Amino acid sequence: MQATLGVDLGGTNLRAGLVDSSGELLAWGMAPLRHRRSPEQFVADMEVLYRSLLKEIEPPLTVTALGLAVPGPLDPVKGEINGAVNLPDWNNIPLVKLAEEALKLPTILVNDGSAFVLGEVTAGVLQGSSNALGLTLGTGVGGGLFLDGKLRTGATGNACEIGHLIVEPGGRLCLCGRRGCLEQYASASAVRRSAIALAEAGELPELLEQVEGNSTNLNTRLVSEAAQNGNSYCRELLAEAGRWLGRGVAQALTILDLDDVVIGGSMARAGELILAPARQSIRQTAFPPRPRLRLVQSKLGDRAAIIGAGSLKLHTDSRLINSD
Amino acid sequence: MQATLGVDLGGTNLRAGLVDSSGELLAWGMAPLRHRRSPEQFVADMEVLYRSLLKEIEPPLTVTALGLAVPGPLDPVKGEINGAVNLPDWNNIPLVKLAEEALKLPTILVNDGSAFVLGEVTAGVLQGSSNALGLTLGTGVGGGLFLDGKLRTGATGNACEIGHLIVEPGGRLCLCGRRGCLEQYASASAVRRSAIALAEAGELPELLEQVEGNSTNLNTRLVSEAAQNGNSYCRELLAEAGRWLGRGVAQALTILDLDDVVIGGSMARAGELILAPARQSIRQTAFPPRPRLRLVQSKLGDRAAIIGAGSLKLHTDSRLINSD
Repeated sequence: MQATLGVDLGGTNLRAGLVDSSGELLAWGMAPLRHRRSPEQFVADMEVLYRSLLKEIEPPLTVTALGLAVPGPLDPVKGEINGAVNLPDWNNIPLVKLAEEALKLPTILVNDGSAFVLGEVTAGVLQGSSNALGLTLGTGVGGGLFLDGKLRTGATGNACEIGHLIVEPGGRLCLCGRRGCLEQYASASAVRRSAIALAEAGELPELLEQVEGNSTNLNTRLVSEAAQNGNSYCRELLAEAGRWLGRGVAQALTILDLDDVVIGGSMARAGELILAPARQSIRQTAFPPRPRLRLVQSKLGDRAAIIGAGSLKLHTDSRLINSD
Repeated sequence: MQATLGVDLGGTNLRAGLVDSSGELLAWGMAPLRHRRSPEQFVADMEVLYRSLLKEIEPPLTVTALGLAVPGPLDPVKGEINGAVNLPDWNNIPLVKLAEEALKLPTILVNDGSAFVLGEVTAGVLQGSSNALGLTLGTGVGGGLFLDGKLRTGATGNACEIGHLIVEPGGRLCLCGRRGCLEQYASASAVRRSAIALAEAGELPELLEQVEGNSTNLNTRLVSEAAQNGNSYCRELLAEAGRWLGRGVAQALTILDLDDVVIGGSMARAGELILAPARQSIRQTAFPPRPRLRLVQSKLGDRAAIIGAGSLKLHTDSRLINSD
């Protein structure tokens, strides 16, 4: 049987899976990726993971390609990643070349947000949708576009950098150097920072107790749990993130005219605590109004980008396949 | 020879032309369209214009379709326009049905911004571009998207309502009911309103003299001329509109990842007085940066939307062709 290897290079983990032509995940696994680990180490770890996945499948698979989902900005023609905000030392890294040398598979590079939305329309909660926007709310905010039945990777391979959509002109300073980017309001990091500030102001005593008084150990999982248990400060933190999310999504919908939006990343686990306020914001700011809006939480979670990366070969332009 | 009829239903005029399969305009003309004129009168005037254009061409043409560019929002499946901000009384108007009955041509409805960008990539300043954004700065701000070599009309036929992108949250009240829409900052109407306010504050004595002291007769042509002659207030009015334009365009580029942007409508005649400040704003706010940005002024002017509407039959989904 034929399959492809899909790999997702995240901020803290490396995930890889073997994907069949229908988008089914045959086997998958992950390895920790320490921040600023070198590209060479990443490729070596990816190879180890790949070999171990291959051993799980009987009879042996014929693997035809590697789809590599990475944080942007990237250069899909050169096969390089360059200046990702969360991998700041990875500049002009010829990742496709390194991966092809190590794994001996034709390799396609794609933005991780693109891989996410492709996974969701291939085998996830938006399966079968022809027009979809995907957002991942994690360390940063990533995005991907599936338009008229095709992945929209963009003129330079960097479509849908929606985390850097400016939702609050002159607002919070972003790692990208601009002010007011969506990422500074709706990412897990942003919610965590707000929770820390609130805890240090003495407003979250119960939560602070859970982390033994060390506010820097707060995270969005704890915030979500507290919110679900009725903590009004935590509910408002999530609602605020949701409202900003809605404003950013509404801007994208006004330009793109679509109704299907899927939210992934660690923040998505807050579910309706974020999504309901986001829908409310979209109602107030999208034009024209979107009575058929479907703003939903990812069910595939971490597997979406693996499946999307593994499905790339079927979905992208041939010009995105590095032919060196 | 075969041709199509392209019609542009503008805020103040009706324009129509006969377009061959290469996008060449064989003949065209216009008729005044008084605001709030009825749809029936519009169709009657369109028919008169069509018959007169046909008489200009020897040997006689075989006209195969009508492409009808209209202000949004529209319903391309029902063939209706509904609640256009500048045609407020035209609600649930079955324009395709009316046009097909009168002209006996299969009719396709499209947003005027979409027709504009399609005209520009077919026969205009962006001829040959595969990824382009078009904006028309007139009474309102319209937009159109050409992505991966295809017109992106959107899931509901209303893609790229960029005039209602919110560039200043909580800002100026828009006719659509929202606040801070691009249209309120970068349209010809917005610049005209700012000029009137400035004149009434006594800052534009020379311009006011040209309109015999009646500030409501000021328009963007006079503002542009004064700016070109060095009037610093008028230069700043145009530069301000340009900076807002740039912010809106940058948001779209961050989502879409493209480099070719064409500006039309009456404001575009201000040329670099608007475009240079817009490029500066885009440099500051688009992510990732766009070293290959091509932000240019339309050369086709009023003919772009006619050519685009006339070229629709070759470029759009069959589902957009009304088959009743």
